[in-house]
Amino acid sequence: MEEYIKKAKVLIEALPYIQKFASKTFVIKFGGSIASDNGLKESFIKDVILLKLIGINIIIVHGGGKEIDGLLKRLNIGINFHEGYRLTDEHTMEVVEMVLSGKINKDLVALINKFGGRACGLSGKDGNLITARKIKTEKIELGFVGEVKRVDKKILLALDPSFIPVIAPVSMDEEGNTLNINADLVASAVASELEAEKLIILSDQDGLLDSGGKLISSVKTADIKDLIGKGVIYGGMIPKANSCADAVKSGVKKVHIINGSVLHAILLEIFTKKGIGTQISN
Amino acid sequence: MEEYIKKAKVLIEALPYIQKFASKTFVIKFGGSIASDNGLKESFIKDVILLKLIGINIIIVHGGGKEIDGLLKRLNIGINFHEGYRLTDEHTMEVVEMVLSGKINKDLVALINKFGGRACGLSGKDGNLITARKIKTEKIELGFVGEVKRVDKKILLALDPSFIPVIAPVSMDEEGNTLNINADLVASAVASELEAEKLIILSDQDGLLDSGGKLISSVKTADIKDLIGKGVIYGGMIPKANSCADAVKSGVKKVHIINGSVLHAILLEIFTKKGIGTQISN
Amino acid sequence: MEEYIKKAKVLIEALPYIQKFASKTFVIKFGGSIASDNGLKESFIKDVILLKLIGINIIIVHGGGKEIDGLLKRLNIGINFHEGYRLTDEHTMEVVEMVLSGKINKDLVALINKFGGRACGLSGKDGNLITARKIKTEKIELGFVGEVKRVDKKILLALDPSFIPVIAPVSMDEEGNTLNINADLVASAVASELEAEKLIILSDQDGLLDSGGKLISSVKTADIKDLIGKGVIYGGMIPKANSCADAVKSGVKKVHIINGSVLHAILLEIFTKKGIGTQISN
Amino acid sequence: MEEYIKKAKVLIEALPYIQKFASKTFVIKFGGSIASDNGLKESFIKDVILLKLIGINIIIVHGGGKEIDGLLKRLNIGINFHEGYRLTDEHTMEVVEMVLSGKINKDLVALINKFGGRACGLSGKDGNLITARKIKTEKIELGFVGEVKRVDKKILLALDPSFIPVIAPVSMDEEGNTLNINADLVASAVASELEAEKLIILSDQDGLLDSGGKLISSVKTADIKDLIGKGVIYGGMIPKANSCADAVKSGVKKVHIINGSVLHAILLEIFTKKGIGTQISN
Amino acid sequence: MEEYIKKAKVLIEALPYIQKFASKTFVIKFGGSIASDNGLKESFIKDVILLKLIGINIIIVHGGGKEIDGLLKRLNIGINFHEGYRLTDEHTMEVVEMVLSGKINKDLVALINKFGGRACGLSGKDGNLITARKIKTEKIELGFVGEVKRVDKKILLALDPSFIPVIAPVSMDEEGNTLNINADLVASAVASELEAEKLIILSDQDGLLDSGGKLISSVKTADIKDLIGKGVIYGGMIPKANSCADAVKSGVKKVHIINGSVLHAILLEIFTKKGIGTQISN
Amino acid sequence: MEEYIKKAKVLIEALPYIQKFASKTFVIKFGGSIASDNGLKESFIKDVILLKLIGINIIIVHGGGKEIDGLLKRLNIGINFHEGYRLTDEHTMEVVEMVLSGKINKDLVALINKFGGRACGLSGKDGNLITARKIKTEKIELGFVGEVKRVDKKILLALDPSFIPVIAPVSMDEEGNTLNINADLVASAVASELEAEKLIILSDQDGLLDSGGKLISSVKTADIKDLIGKGVIYGGMIPKANSCADAVKSGVKKVHIINGSVLHAILLEIFTKKGIGTQISN
Repeated sequence: MEEYIKKAKVLIEALPYIQKFASKTFVIKFGGSIASDNGLKESFIKDVILLKLIGINIIIVHGGGKEIDGLLKRLNIGINFHEGYRLTDEHTMEVVEMVLSGKINKDLVALINKFGGRACGLSGKDGNLITARKIKTEKIELGFVGEVKRVDKKILLALDPSFIPVIAPVSMDEEGNTLNINADLVASAVASELEAEKLIILSDQDGLLDSGGKLISSVKTADIKDLIGKGVIYGGMIPKANSCADAVKSGVKKVHIINGSVLHAILLEIFTKKGIGTQISN
Repeated sequence: MEEYIKKAKVLIEALPYIQKFASKTFVIKFGGSIASDNGLKESFIKDVILLKLIGINIIIVHGGGKEIDGLLKRLNIGINFHEGYRLTDEHTMEVVEMVLSGKINKDLVALINKFGGRACGLSGKDGNLITARKIKTEKIELGFVGEVKRVDKKILLALDPSFIPVIAPVSMDEEGNTLNINADLVASAVASELEAEKLIILSDQDGLLDSGGKLISSVKTADIKDLIGKGVIYGGMIPKANSCADAVKSGVKKVHIINGSVLHAILLEIFTKKGIGTQISN
Repeated sequence: MEEYIKKAKVLIEALPYIQKFASKTFVIKFGGSIASDNGLKESFIKDVILLKLIGINIIIVHGGGKEIDGLLKRLNIGINFHEGYRLTDEHTMEVVEMVLSGKINKDLVALINKFGGRACGLSGKDGNLITARKIKTEKIELGFVGEVKRVDKKILLALDPSFIPVIAPVSMDEEGNTLNINADLVASAVASELEAEKLIILSDQDGLLDSGGKLISSVKTADIKDLIGKGVIYGGMIPKANSCADAVKSGVKKVHIINGSVLHAILLEIFTKKGIGTQISN
Repeated sequence: MEEYIKKAKVLIEALPYIQKFASKTFVIKFGGSIASDNGLKESFIKDVILLKLIGINIIIVHGGGKEIDGLLKRLNIGINFHEGYRLTDEHTMEVVEMVLSGKINKDLVALINKFGGRACGLSGKDGNLITARKIKTEKIELGFVGEVKRVDKKILLALDPSFIPVIAPVSMDEEGNTLNINADLVASAVASELEAEKLIILSDQDGLLDSGGKLISSVKTADIKDLIGKGVIYGGMIPKANSCADAVKSGVKKVHIINGSVLHAILLEIFTKKGIGTQISN
Repeated sequence: MEEYIKKAKVLIEALPYIQKFASKTFVIKFGGSIASDNGLKESFIKDVILLKLIGINIIIVHGGGKEIDGLLKRLNIGINFHEGYRLTDEHTMEVVEMVLSGKINKDLVALINKFGGRACGLSGKDGNLITARKIKTEKIELGFVGEVKRVDKKILLALDPSFIPVIAPVSMDEEGNTLNINADLVASAVASELEAEKLIILSDQDGLLDSGGKLISSVKTADIKDLIGKGVIYGGMIPKANSCADAVKSGVKKVHIINGSVLHAILLEIFTKKGIGTQISN
Repeated sequence: MEEYIKKAKVLIEALPYIQKFASKTFVIKFGGSIASDNGLKESFIKDVILLKLIGINIIIVHGGGKEIDGLLKRLNIGINFHEGYRLTDEHTMEVVEMVLSGKINKDLVALINKFGGRACGLSGKDGNLITARKIKTEKIELGFVGEVKRVDKKILLALDPSFIPVIAPVSMDEEGNTLNINADLVASAVASELEAEKLIILSDQDGLLDSGGKLISSVKTADIKDLIGKGVIYGGMIPKANSCADAVKSGVKKVHIINGSVLHAILLEIFTKKGIGTQISN
């Protein structure tokens, strides 16, 4: 009995957080190594279903780099990147879309449904959710690589609140080309359009790290420029910090970068005072 | 961190129960010794708020015998009972109503609001929620003692789903007399009218006890007669068992009798497989 | 037949007033000697039900000084006032709340229901209707005496339009203390929050009286200062006039002070051109 | 003041009737000599607006025999009747429709609007409200004379509850012919389709009269056959009694035949216990 | 088969226009010689029903000069005009209303219903749709001739989207006089109030003609003054051009003047790039 | 001009069909050779958008055999069939799903959106649209081949009426296995669940052919058994005829089998009296 009462107390401890976030919107970027670990994936799915049940509107955006590479290899299609962008010709694009919209997306949907949730898979094409445009770089032709031009949230509103939308980061530009978009960009654009309470990015690191490799627990958007100037935020952390700051400036209340390889990472981040990763807010 | 992950797992363990009961209705009879223990009362209130937040419609019905006796004594009004019924003359009735509707009811409302819920106190008079009729006994005139003739759920529906209704068991008969009604009867009648998923009775005992004083964990309404015949259910347990069976027959899915003096008794009963008290169902 | 036709003509005479006020909101402060005269109370209740039926949203706020004194005396608790405020210690507050929320409030609800209306009793605690704060005076500690800090009309809107809310002027401050508030202040705050068409105050006098004791039929808020300066409005009439003016400035269209001891005083005030009391407007 | 209080009491006397009929539907057949008396017409209009304001859904069906005759004469078109039916050739039908839909209907609409109501004139053609069929008689060709085949209440529901529909008894059959229908038949069919609380027929007589010329205050449909057999109801009263009984059998709660030439006849009928005319019910 | 495929292609050609105008509002002024040609009228009605079915909200306003003259002659009432206004005494007004509201209006309603639409005839009186005021001219008393003072769109919204409102240009002023209003003015006022996508005026000419008698296909409101100055728009075209410009300035997106005597004129104007008449827009 | 009027007449000819089918539901099975002919596909898409715009609820179910074979070959996975069923091991299933849900489905969605429609791609997994079960055959293990156990139309209703759902015939069974289902079966099950007006099957043949190879224009479900007995319907036509009859028995009003390789085949079938294929109804 003692054991049970202790558990009940844990539930009660969560009460103030549940009260705080009920009927708010969280956009979660799912990706990285968590995607290929079934235990982590299942714990993630259960976290999401729990959050949905206590009244939080959850939207998931996923990536899928590893599985794309796998199928490209099996089909003997070359894999090339330029400054983080996948060089994407027509054949590559076809594979990217099949893997993202036809495999990873449907797997996540199936898993959520299996544990009692009600998910609906979408790509940026469905209901014109995302209108993309090609990214132009000076030196090199990236091919069918896009960024978000416009988000039409109509289909998200139609599905809410019964369903959990799961979004694959593929969409069309206005000429009808299918484009591959970075999942972080899609998650950030959707969160901004919905003026989400939180954008949570599951990463393979603990969050933003300072020059000494230590986790930065919390940072204000106004201080980021200064921290970059001082070299505290440096290197590969700079674009991450900037893109999170952009999301906050576009209307997201708080951005969280957390380590997806921690069991129940999302619950820990949301249901504890300090959280486990980095929080960026105004 | 380990500690936190363990807590997160506790939340996830609750998931199947939350999924099962979301958007169902629970009527809870609050009373007994829990009412005079501030710690227990606060843990009860938090349980209720948690259940409301995860989507369960909660309705509370309370009694208040001790506090009524207290005020009667201070006013030098005699206290008399007949077979469990309070002999209730006009002066007694006035005191009963002031204590139930004006003190205990408002205290519960205030406490729920204090912890972030949104309660609305009602008596059976408000919105004609309960139409009562006098109980007639052969030997003795009980006075202003009633039973439930009719429940008009309109006001409960108007308040739902933002508010937690808290009901004082006082109402009027069709002649306009104010009557004192047993809180168990009111809770059972409201639960039946709403075809509630659960009627939970907080008692001072662990549940229905058999002739050996052992807790009966679960009993089917069909078996109750037999158990009484065999002497397993006996004495004061007989009317309790019968009235629970009546509630089930009138449309309540399950009746729970639990010991209100256990911390978080409601969560333990609902969020564990076996529960801690007695369950009566068809 | 002639008699009946004459009566029908009376109904028809009311037509323009009914057309004018349909779907408007009236907040009525009920109190004073009318509360202890059953005939007057019944005529008041019927007036209210009639107004509700012709489409006016009615909200009643009641006081209860006399009955509070009665119970305090029976309990040998001292009765003390300071500049119109009841000195209210914890024991007094308990009595005040039981009488207001548990007796007078429920009596009014019962009476409205008896004559075919559908009332719902509320205190300022229910649904957080009123958040109070303690009144601080320089010389003396008043105890649990409050004023209105904030009105949350959510519960009034949930009940409307089927029910007549009846409000007892007791509420909590943000520390969780129960406070006793002047019923006029509550009525005025509720009327302001709802931008009511009318705030009608049932008083023991005919309305505002001038220095010659004559009724002031109608006064503009802009003229009140001048009339006070000239001594036309003087003495105890000054605070009354000022508080009515405040209500008008906060959004109430018109404040009426009328003599509650006139039979059907409300109908006479509303359904005749000149009315029977004092009207304050911009 | 005494005078005013007396008037207020009259309003209060109406209370139980207002409570009884709020949100019920009354279909009123307007016609006969009242139509050509401006005073009576105005008192009728005010009665109707009052009833609408206290929450009764009012639908008016009007006739117009006299004015039709007037225009026919001015156009030198012959006027002929057969067993109560107007022999209606194409030229006559054109005149009938212009007078009913273009004159009397719009006059009533204008008058209701003038006194603060909000009427909408309809003919049986509008929104396919009434589908008619030609009446076939054995001996003689009646021409464009119809009866009600079907009522489509859709347009009445679209207009309700803001508007008072005013219906001219002209409609089409399924071949597209415009037909003239007896207003009593239209009123009865509309009342049946809406399962109206009351069908009120304004007539030039006090109601159904017995063989001695005395008013029959109230009669049950089950007794009508017997009263006809006994000769109590006889002659021209027989078809009237039968058609009222039919309306009751088709779902109207009560049919009232009253003398439209009594000032405020409708109010007198509805707001007094006995009424002034004949009531037919099951 | 070839023939059918060609027809299907015609349907598909209409697709972009259907997409463009779905859920927009068109106000159509029906009148002129089309009114007396049954073939044209039927083709017009079918056009209207088609437009309604593809999701365009259609409102028709009709005139009726010829038929009014016809009845006036049969009744030996003089017919006189002054600067385009019909001199309208009381007798004339009665005839005007009967013909417009009781004949032409109901004929159009019947025809729409016959072909499967669902029309509802209205005059400016119904639901207070149009409040008129008398036109005052300096030299001569025009009688009951009005212009639009105010449009109350409430009844149009109540009917939408199931019904096609058909409006007769007769209404009341605030003194209760019935006034005859030019149908163009009514159509323009209704279109402005609804901020219609299009006001389409069926005329007996091809549109606005220039001084050489050639059709002006399209004109901007800003250029009209200039074209008048240059004499391109001249004579009787000037007031037409000005009133169309006024409608555009009051919120109508585009005004079309087209020749109603062309079969399916409306479809041709809307479903072809250039249209067949004159378009006036900003 | 003549040309345009002729085109307008074609639109008007479609009127009765549009009236008949407005707000009805059509489920269309898209597949066969049409899928690989861009011209046919585009004409099909436009037909669908047109039907949606005139108020028909369209749901598309697609297959995709050829493209699945293509990718299987590129991946050196064997292609085997047994009695029409694809032998589907885990690797094959992965390819089937990627092609159906990630390629063909998204291509159709993109094409509809490109021409101004608003499609949303779904697989049977999304929102638990289809719960499948494995098909068991006696002789051979088919692998991940399923049939429809249950349709949950909730997500279709959430999307309606703004979106055109496009469904890939892949789903899960209750054990969480992904199964490949025949698209005809999915279309038929969805049409039955929605009690669709029409189930239209785009085939590579003109419809059901009799033993002489002649098209059977129309057949009643009651006659099918007889026609099979007589050998009129024979061979491969028998299962087709039976499955269409089953759909009709399960609530679909009419099933159409048409040749998808005819331009605008759907419009021709629906907007002409006789149609171009075979109609099966009760």
